[in-house]
Amino acid sequence: MATQQELSETRQHSGVGLVQTRLATLFMPPDWLKLAGGGELGPIQVAYETYGTLSPEKDNAIFICHALTGDAHAAGYYEDDDEKAKPGWWDELIGPGRTLDTDKYFVICANVLGGCMGTTGPGSINPETNQPYRLNFPFITVGDIVEVHAALTRQLGIDQLLAVIGGSLGGMQVLEWAARFPDQLRSAICLASAAQLSAQGIAFNAVGRRAIKTDPEFKDGEYERGAGPRYGLALARMIAHITYLSDQSIEMKFGRRLQDHDTFTYEMLPEVEFQVESYLHYQGKRFVERFDANSYLYLTRAMDYFDLVSQHGSLTKALGQTNARFLIASYDSDWLFTTTQSKEIVRALIECGKHVSFIELKSPFGHDSFLIEIEQLQKLITPFLAQAYESRLAEKQS
Amino acid sequence: MATQQELSETRQHSGVGLVQTRLATLFMPPDWLKLAGGGELGPIQVAYETYGTLSPEKDNAIFICHALTGDAHAAGYYEDDDEKAKPGWWDELIGPGRTLDTDKYFVICANVLGGCMGTTGPGSINPETNQPYRLNFPFITVGDIVEVHAALTRQLGIDQLLAVIGGSLGGMQVLEWAARFPDQLRSAICLASAAQLSAQGIAFNAVGRRAIKTDPEFKDGEYERGAGPRYGLALARMIAHITYLSDQSIEMKFGRRLQDHDTFTYEMLPEVEFQVESYLHYQGKRFVERFDANSYLYLTRAMDYFDLVSQHGSLTKALGQTNARFLIASYDSDWLFTTTQSKEIVRALIECGKHVSFIELKSPFGHDSFLIEIEQLQKLITPFLAQAYESRLAEKQS
Repeated sequence: MATQQELSETRQHSGVGLVQTRLATLFMPPDWLKLAGGGELGPIQVAYETYGTLSPEKDNAIFICHALTGDAHAAGYYEDDDEKAKPGWWDELIGPGRTLDTDKYFVICANVLGGCMGTTGPGSINPETNQPYRLNFPFITVGDIVEVHAALTRQLGIDQLLAVIGGSLGGMQVLEWAARFPDQLRSAICLASAAQLSAQGIAFNAVGRRAIKTDPEFKDGEYERGAGPRYGLALARMIAHITYLSDQSIEMKFGRRLQDHDTFTYEMLPEVEFQVESYLHYQGKRFVERFDANSYLYLTRAMDYFDLVSQHGSLTKALGQTNARFLIASYDSDWLFTTTQSKEIVRALIECGKHVSFIELKSPFGHDSFLIEIEQLQKLITPFLAQAYESRLAEKQS
Repeated sequence: MATQQELSETRQHSGVGLVQTRLATLFMPPDWLKLAGGGELGPIQVAYETYGTLSPEKDNAIFICHALTGDAHAAGYYEDDDEKAKPGWWDELIGPGRTLDTDKYFVICANVLGGCMGTTGPGSINPETNQPYRLNFPFITVGDIVEVHAALTRQLGIDQLLAVIGGSLGGMQVLEWAARFPDQLRSAICLASAAQLSAQGIAFNAVGRRAIKTDPEFKDGEYERGAGPRYGLALARMIAHITYLSDQSIEMKFGRRLQDHDTFTYEMLPEVEFQVESYLHYQGKRFVERFDANSYLYLTRAMDYFDLVSQHGSLTKALGQTNARFLIASYDSDWLFTTTQSKEIVRALIECGKHVSFIELKSPFGHDSFLIEIEQLQKLITPFLAQAYESRLAEKQS
């Protein structure tokens, strides 16, 4: 147990402090969500958090799109957090005086459709059968995810967002927002992302799904809550986790160091040997405790299928309708979502005469950099958002 | 069934034609192999093939070191090959008039210790128990592998090899040969390799081993021959296979193309969707048919532990004793064994005044390039070997 002292220190560092996840019900029958893949889905529940206050003009809202395995808990802490609980996943970026300044902005983060953190997904109860959907959950796309989040913002009374921001799969959602709802955002911040996943990324996801599906505990998705393909899901996470790191960051953190030895262990098959092994096992184990295997299948597929180019004919057609200002950033050590992929987005935006800022950030942490290199993001995003905010005021005055 | 026509065409293209794998027994008790990890092992059987004729002076022998999952069958075909059988894995490089010219050279390739293609490994019978070793097989190193192959060449009457050549784990063996038996080779050709595996490479191997060990059919290695952790081993292979390819090569071969559809499939969870998935599944399945899971565990560990630097104090100490000429080549698209790693070897060789040629070859095929880009290797290796061969003649005349 942490002392009360330690607990309060953690809480002191959180900008927004105590938060709660709320639930909204959207898409009630007969106005169900029309899925991109055909068919309808409803009622749909969305888990979301908000930080700051919506202005009377409802023009200061920023929507955060989380990545593959993220959730609505972007900042703050919960009343019943134990001493091990970390604050929200982007806590350092959100709060009074921080980059997503809750004294100025109203910040929203919502769990994605198909997820397992409160928003309707394969673990939710299918009202037609009174059983969890499991693999009867319909095929969903990034478009469907954004459709649900757009409905949430409308339900909150917001017609236009000041900004939509996200990294990785979150960045794909940002691009989808701009393509699908061109008038509903003033600015878009897309970090470590792409208009389509690379073939290599699809390959890694496919092997991860295979690991889940070949685990005997998977049982075609019909496992009980709390049970399921633990080994398979942990493996999928371990594979993915390597792709989120750079070789350099693994090298820096673990090198070739052995777990509990200074030299070779000549035991036959010790459970783990290298420190990186131990770290990956830990990551896999922790992930299984918080994530649902069926959700992982649905969300990685949504990611693999996302393709703004084939969907719209070209990237300029996809992004040509919006007047949002764009900020695109990639990381030099990110080999899953490369700078080349970010530049394709930038090229399309320039071609159709949009406002776009682009930077390749330097970081050794690979794809995960957007979750780690907070100071860099502060410097980058704070003035970009301030400009969007001021342009809104200027517009109002004119 | 292939027609007789097709079959004979395949055979016509093989330079060395019909070959046989032979078995040699080395390290009989009491002169057992002293393992790097302590302890002894014997008797040790080695499966090997030879192509060409050993000169009366026994000075024209080239030893090929195979990669992780390779075998002794580097060239030619077997009498009982069916129509699906490919010729040996480096067939295009070996034969009369080819780069490893069997009119001039005596070429040897042997399966590695710990393997499952004829050389003593975890699937072999432990004479003490009359049962397969399985996980009672001792920990082995790249040093042990080379020790066994050096004993084989001595048994063939060869004191000094004209060249040792290999890629990937084979290249690690080449470096180990130079460090361990500095006087027993005149030249060394090390392709797409490194003096130590990267931390990222260790991480991928660790996850592959984990996939095997968490398959319920693994049974702590006590599975029956023909049974075993099929899914786990296939997963390990699929993970590894992605690391052998470059993103570009996956893109070129498969792109984001779907398996049997031109557009999205909205079925719930089709077995495979993207062509790259189907390809990886096929690779995994084929691998399980020919490879033993326990061997995979032992050999990937040998690869992970290989570290000439920590073993000798420095790379210059490791490679400073030999007078062999080196040819080092890397591939620009290889992200598993990078050019940077090859250059570390080159730098050490230059530092201790050795003869070394280095080239970074251009190829889109990633790590697998050394098995694919044969024409490049022909141009590179043919003159290098000719020079080694002529220097031997010149020495003899002087």
